[in-house]
Order: sequence, then structure tokens, then C-alpha cells
Amino acid sequence: MCDSHRVNVAVIGLGLIGGSLLRALHAHGHQVIGYDLDPETRHAARAYPTAETIPAAIQDAETTVLAVPLPALHPVRTQLADYDGLLTDVTSVKGPVAKLFEGRRFVGGHPMAGKESSSFAASESTLFDGCAWVLCLEPGTTSLPDWVTLARLYTSIGARVVPATADEHDKAVARISHVPHLLAAALSNLLEGHPLAGTLAAGSFRDGTRVAATRAELVAAMCGGNAAAVQSALAGVLADLGAWDRALDADDPVAALTPLLRRAGELRRGWPGAVDVPVEIALDGDSLLALGRAGGWITRVEESAFGLRPGSDRNPA
Amino acid sequence: MCDSHRVNVAVIGLGLIGGSLLRALHAHGHQVIGYDLDPETRHAARAYPTAETIPAAIQDAETTVLAVPLPALHPVRTQLADYDGLLTDVTSVKGPVAKLFEGRRFVGGHPMAGKESSSFAASESTLFDGCAWVLCLEPGTTSLPDWVTLARLYTSIGARVVPATADEHDKAVARISHVPHLLAAALSNLLEGHPLAGTLAAGSFRDGTRVAATRAELVAAMCGGNAAAVQSALAGVLADLGAWDRALDADDPVAALTPLLRRAGELRRGWPGAVDVPVEIALDGDSLLALGRAGGWITRVEESAFGLRPGSDRNPA
Repeated sequence: MCDSHRVNVAVIGLGLIGGSLLRALHAHGHQVIGYDLDPETRHAARAYPTAETIPAAIQDAETTVLAVPLPALHPVRTQLADYDGLLTDVTSVKGPVAKLFEGRRFVGGHPMAGKESSSFAASESTLFDGCAWVLCLEPGTTSLPDWVTLARLYTSIGARVVPATADEHDKAVARISHVPHLLAAALSNLLEGHPLAGTLAAGSFRDGTRVAATRAELVAAMCGGNAAAVQSALAGVLADLGAWDRALDADDPVAALTPLLRRAGELRRGWPGAVDVPVEIALDGDSLLALGRAGGWITRVEESAFGLRPGSDRNPA
Repeated sequence: MCDSHRVNVAVIGLGLIGGSLLRALHAHGHQVIGYDLDPETRHAARAYPTAETIPAAIQDAETTVLAVPLPALHPVRTQLADYDGLLTDVTSVKGPVAKLFEGRRFVGGHPMAGKESSSFAASESTLFDGCAWVLCLEPGTTSLPDWVTLARLYTSIGARVVPATADEHDKAVARISHVPHLLAAALSNLLEGHPLAGTLAAGSFRDGTRVAATRAELVAAMCGGNAAAVQSALAGVLADLGAWDRALDADDPVAALTPLLRRAGELRRGWPGAVDVPVEIALDGDSLLALGRAGGWITRVEESAFGLRPGSDRNPA
């Protein structure tokens, strides 16, 4: 990374994501300062530059990352009414957040990173190594220079930056995160009243239900905040399960079911796909969004963007 | 283990389960001999006693473990028409197998152990350490001394022996193995036509779909061979998902969804449960089945059985 691209960053909220970002930006030579509402968290982060208040944290920051949960974005935004730097967030639903920051200098973001624990103590400077980090890009609305500033910042700490509209993001995470949480919960419910099943449960149950241990409030907030996209993806799941249920009624259920399950195995075995197509693309909204839609991402920002897209059968058309 | 309980065992089929059993029994001082239809597999297992034919393998065996897949049980049974020793199997559906061996000296078994790979090369002597191994017990039909012989054999290699009827077993595995495979497949299908989703997919998708990579033929055989129990468990999943889908239509979907998801989290966080109630139980069918139904298992067979049941809220009543 060339020095001229080092950015003065404030990170508001020092949980798992904010704490890891503070560590990672610091480790990569950025000027960064952290703030957390909780004095104990600020104390835990004292090896890094921290501020006691939001105004003190943001006063010199060109970019401010709001690493707070969704419900906290509204009050924090109020405290940033006079801030004219670039704002971004890290929450998992992008449509409602885009509305919240309408008219502000804002680019929505979402790193696809997580762990069971969410405290500063669990944070790590390497959390974003190879992590897909969505940066929202709304044609005609988002400032491309601001988007590029963040893409440069996050690729500098090893993230793969994925361009997507808020709507595309929300539909994708419904499929790969929100609905998986609902299926894990439905699977866990099958233990109710069946202690023998609990004794026999092994790998397929353990992995299929892992995220069901998440607090109900968090899962409901994710799914309820993205209801339309979740319902659309859930409709696909219900249609598949219904078709397979009917196949089990056949005279030869094995023969009836086999072809219906084949595509799922191909899709899973093909995921995450080989990374074999380095491409250099122009830094314009349409090219970036086409890359994201094709399953690609940005690994380096020069005068043009340098991206990778997975698999050889996907064309960013 | 006291010497008088060492058993002369033949293991027919030396894949992951049979190979691991050959190694484990050998390591624990049992007289054991293995056989596989495939000469290359026999060659791979040459460090252990092996036979070139089924008759040679079983001629001195008091107990013969059929560690072959479900479709191979029928032809193997034909080759064992004159065998008068104790027979057991390791397949994942117990009702149809019980029918197949009706009138024979047979106790159905199913070790809840598995790995991605299924060859002798993948087998390990420690595969069954702490593994739940179902042994089927049909009141009035199963010979209790034969059941006890196998319970002693498998506890001697570290397995937790779980008593259950074939019907109880099949209903339980529908819940914790067969339906999880179907949900994983439905989740994988959500990638179809959504390369962006594939790029963003991380932990919850990876774990929720892991078993979807299984060959369609195997999943269809498991589910189709246990159709009624799978349909019954699937009905519970469909009811839950339908209710949650309707909650997402509410004016406040987060508030509507939260209480509906709470029980699933409790169940998952409570699984597999603390092992805190060692109990000594009588070696009779009713006591053993009551232990299994309560989520318990056998760890040691003496004159009476010594078992453990998980959790303090479960009474083997």
C-alpha cells in the first residue's frame, strides 16, 4: 500500500468487528482511533489509540466506521449530525441502513466475518484476512471516490471487497445467512420430546444446528429486518422440501428422490469454487456491480480495480 | 475386560466402519478376522487377520458383523444361510433390516460414526471412542444373551451402547440424520443462479450445507428407506417454517418472530447435555429400553448393566 493512501479512521464500537478492525488497521499502518460506549471495553482496548467520546474520536477522522449493532445506528447517527467525513457501517442488513443515512455521505458495508463470541476480547487483527466485505454501490447515488476510498482501506487489510447494491446484498444474505439460521432452528426443534434422538445426534445434526444456539432476539432481528428477501428464499426451501416429501410417497421413493437431490450436491461440491480468473476492471459503477453479480470481488485498487471472480463458468455479463 | 468375555468375531466388509471395527477389536485383544469382496481392500488390511472368502472368515466366528451397505445385506445373507453364530449389522435403517433377518439369530446395530471418506484407508481404531452404538432390542423377540454379548463387545472398544427398538431407532435417525440431509440440500439449492450469494456465504452456510455434498444416491437411499419416519419429522420442520414465514408478515416481524424461535435455541444450547447420572440397571429388556428412551446408554456390562443417562431432568420412567 502506498503511503498516500493511508487513511485517518475512527472506529465507533469495539466489539468483535470494531475491535478486530481497530487492530487490523493499526497493524497495517493506518492512523486509527477507537471508541466504545462501555468504559470497560475502552479499557480493554487501551493498547490502541482510543477516545473517551464520539466527538473526540471523529474530530480528525476522514472516515468513520460505525461498528455498532443495528439498533444503535440511529442514536449514533444523531451524534454525528455535524460530521462531514465519510461514514460507513458493518451491519448485516443494508436496505434499512441506506434509508437511515439518506442524504449523508455514507457507503454501507458488511464484512462476512463472525465468531461465537462478540466482545473486544474475542477480536483479532486477522479476522478479515480473505473475508468477503460487501460495500454497497447504488448507481447514480453512491459517490464512487468514497466507495473507492473504502475499497482501498479494506483491501489493504486483506479483505475481498464485494460490490453490490443494498437490495442485491439483502437478497444474498437472506439465502446464505438468514434462512440458514431458520433451518438450524427448525432442526433443533426436532429434539423436543425425543431424548433418544439427542443421544444419537452426531455430525450432521451438530453442524446443521450450530447457529441455532444464537439468541432468538438476534435471529429475529436479522430475519425480521430483511423480511421480504427471507420470505422469498424460504419459499424456495419450502417448495423443495414439499417436492421431496411427495417423492417419499412414491412406490419407489429412492428412485423418485434421487434425481431431485442431484443438483444440490453439485452446487455444494462446487462451492466456494476455484478462484481462477484474475481480471482488471474499470473503476465505474456498472463494471463493479457486474463483477459482484458474477460472484467476483476486488483484491486491489490501483488506478483501475483488480478483481477476481470464482469459477470459470461465471461470466460477468 | 475379563478374558472370558473375549469373542471370536468376523467382520464382513472393511470400509470405514468395518475397517475401524477390525482395528479396534484387534487393538482390544479380541480374536477377529476381516473379509472384503474387494481384493485391494483385503490387501490394504493385510496387517490384520483377513480371509479370502466369507466361509473362511466365519468358520470359527461366534459373532459375525455385517459391515456392508444396505443393498449388499441381501446377497451376503444368502451366503450365510448355514451360519448359526450371532449376526449383527451396522446399517442406518433398522426396520427393513430386521425384516430381512427375520427368523435368524440377529441383533441389528448402528454405530453413529462417520467421516467424509468411506474406505479402509480412512478407518481408525479409535473411531468408536465415545460413539453412540444402537443395538436393537425387540421385546419378546430379541435374545437378551445375544444382545448382551454385543453390548459387552462394543462397550469393550469404548462405544456407548444405546438400547432401542428398530422403530424407535428409525424415528430418531430421521430427526437427527435423514431430515438434516434434506435441509442441507434445500439450503444448497439457494445458490442456484446466485453467484453473489456464493461469494458471501460463510460459516452458517458452510456448516448448514456440509452434508449436502453427500451423493444423491446415498441420501435418497437413507430417506427413501425410512420414508414414513422422515415424512413425520419433515412435517414438523414444514410446520415451523410455515409459522415463521407467517410471522414475517406481521407489522412488527421481529417481535412476532422472537418468541417463536426461543425454544430452538434452548434445545440446541442444551444439547448434548451434561452426563451426570450414572445408574446401574437390571439386564432386562424393559429396563434397557426405558434407559434408551430417556436418552441414556450402556457403558459397561457386568452381571447387571452400568449405564449413564444425560441431563438431570430425564427420568428413565
